[in-house]
Amino acid sequence: MGAAMQLGQLSRWSLFNGASFCRHHVRRQHSIRGYSSAADPTSAGGVSLIQGASRGLGLEFVRQLLETRPDESVVATCRNPSGAEQLQELARAHSDRLTVLPLDVTAEGSIQEAAKSVKASHGRVDLLVNTAAILHVQGKVQPETALARVTPEAMLLSYQVNAMGPILVAKHFHQLLKAGGGKGTRRPAAVLANMSARVGSIGDNQIGGWHSYRASKTALNQLSKNLAIEFTRRKDPIIVVMLHPGTVDTDLSKPFQRGVPEGKLFSKERAVRQLLDIIDTRQLEDSGHFFAWDKQEIPW
Amino acid sequence: MGAAMQLGQLSRWSLFNGASFCRHHVRRQHSIRGYSSAADPTSAGGVSLIQGASRGLGLEFVRQLLETRPDESVVATCRNPSGAEQLQELARAHSDRLTVLPLDVTAEGSIQEAAKSVKASHGRVDLLVNTAAILHVQGKVQPETALARVTPEAMLLSYQVNAMGPILVAKHFHQLLKAGGGKGTRRPAAVLANMSARVGSIGDNQIGGWHSYRASKTALNQLSKNLAIEFTRRKDPIIVVMLHPGTVDTDLSKPFQRGVPEGKLFSKERAVRQLLDIIDTRQLEDSGHFFAWDKQEIPW
Repeated sequence: MGAAMQLGQLSRWSLFNGASFCRHHVRRQHSIRGYSSAADPTSAGGVSLIQGASRGLGLEFVRQLLETRPDESVVATCRNPSGAEQLQELARAHSDRLTVLPLDVTAEGSIQEAAKSVKASHGRVDLLVNTAAILHVQGKVQPETALARVTPEAMLLSYQVNAMGPILVAKHFHQLLKAGGGKGTRRPAAVLANMSARVGSIGDNQIGGWHSYRASKTALNQLSKNLAIEFTRRKDPIIVVMLHPGTVDTDLSKPFQRGVPEGKLFSKERAVRQLLDIIDTRQLEDSGHFFAWDKQEIPW
Repeated sequence: MGAAMQLGQLSRWSLFNGASFCRHHVRRQHSIRGYSSAADPTSAGGVSLIQGASRGLGLEFVRQLLETRPDESVVATCRNPSGAEQLQELARAHSDRLTVLPLDVTAEGSIQEAAKSVKASHGRVDLLVNTAAILHVQGKVQPETALARVTPEAMLLSYQVNAMGPILVAKHFHQLLKAGGGKGTRRPAAVLANMSARVGSIGDNQIGGWHSYRASKTALNQLSKNLAIEFTRRKDPIIVVMLHPGTVDTDLSKPFQRGVPEGKLFSKERAVRQLLDIIDTRQLEDSGHFFAWDKQEIPW
């Protein structure tokens, strides 16, 4: 059943709660310069925060932002920075532009701490991408192929990480997004991008299954819509979008790659390039909408 | 903000976990008779189970089923039967047709126990209505009027009761619904009716707010769609529908009744009559759909 599914996010989410964290609270050395040409995405500046950056799409977001946007400051968060080797490597290579912070979406205090830290170091956020999500956790969460396999434990953990996580991050970074507002970037406002997934669509649900994951992503879509409505009403300069990255070739998607049509299994590089293109071209009226990798809207 | 909202379900859900339960394991004395006339809803027989029957819509479902369908056996479940006075009164008056069982949707073991008990006493279920839900729990859950008021505790409890509850009930009563299949009723199959709410619609979300409640009902819609797909694939004679009852006049809806258009604040009696009419007229092709009190479909 899972073979042909379009996965949204496949990072394995370990339950390990690291006690010691490597912190790289490096104050930005570069000032934010204004965007010089609408056709040149490399100078889209500002402060980007990638939540769930230890691997998978999150890590690739950090890498591409650092590589292609020299004026960009990046904050990368993950549960256990000391165990995130590739992220640490990037932090060593870009110590003036990359800040790594611990953030566990299931512990609201850690979100609050991270927000305080970013407020002190950067004072603003212009792009926030929530990527951390679980589809499978060894011994705890397994994509269900039938109703009989649904367990309360898997449903709760999936909801905590995939749906509540992004909204609690939004709660604590709201004022920083408002302060950033996209000023100094090519975007007309700050962007809050939540990684959703096509399987979260009810209207598009043809084959069922994956109860915990589907329901959590559907809930995330509703919560994101709520954020968009609230920010619009407040006239906050924040665009909220839900993104479906397509099925991305990672070690974790391997069991579910069978049946993916040729040319539709994306490398992480391609997937993030496509997602950044969507993010960079959003307007205020796109807030509250759900976009696939090809910019097509996905039904609720 | 909440005033004009169309509430789905307003029963207060207390956290009290009663230690002693009054049980009324009365074996059905009446055999199920075939439905005699398609125009006469009063003889729609079978076994109906109302989950969340201590008050509100659930209690009214029990009352109407007992009063209008003399051939009907009813199983009523709630967290704490010994504290459910009105339900106990009905049980005394209809001791041959009403069975009251404890069932707490947040404790899977209690769902399993209830299913075992119904299997032994009735051997089948032809209609299962999941009504238990929370919008407000003193000191724990408060409908959020802004992102800043979202708490993990309220989100988790709302999800457990409103979204996970019905799916776990479906998991354990699946075989009983299959065994019933609506035989001896006017319906072409068994019906699993999950009380959803218009505020669970993403497409219809205009004013935001109520994050915990909205997200839980949206997730319930996705989970219900999943059930419909699975039962259809298995060729199980079970129709799954999501229902929006409208705003119903209960003590608990009082704080949210302002702004409800005239004639759109329903009595419990009217609300349940309308919902039973929808349930009784569903066909197999309606499975997986979301209906309002007026039989209009609600967008996802």
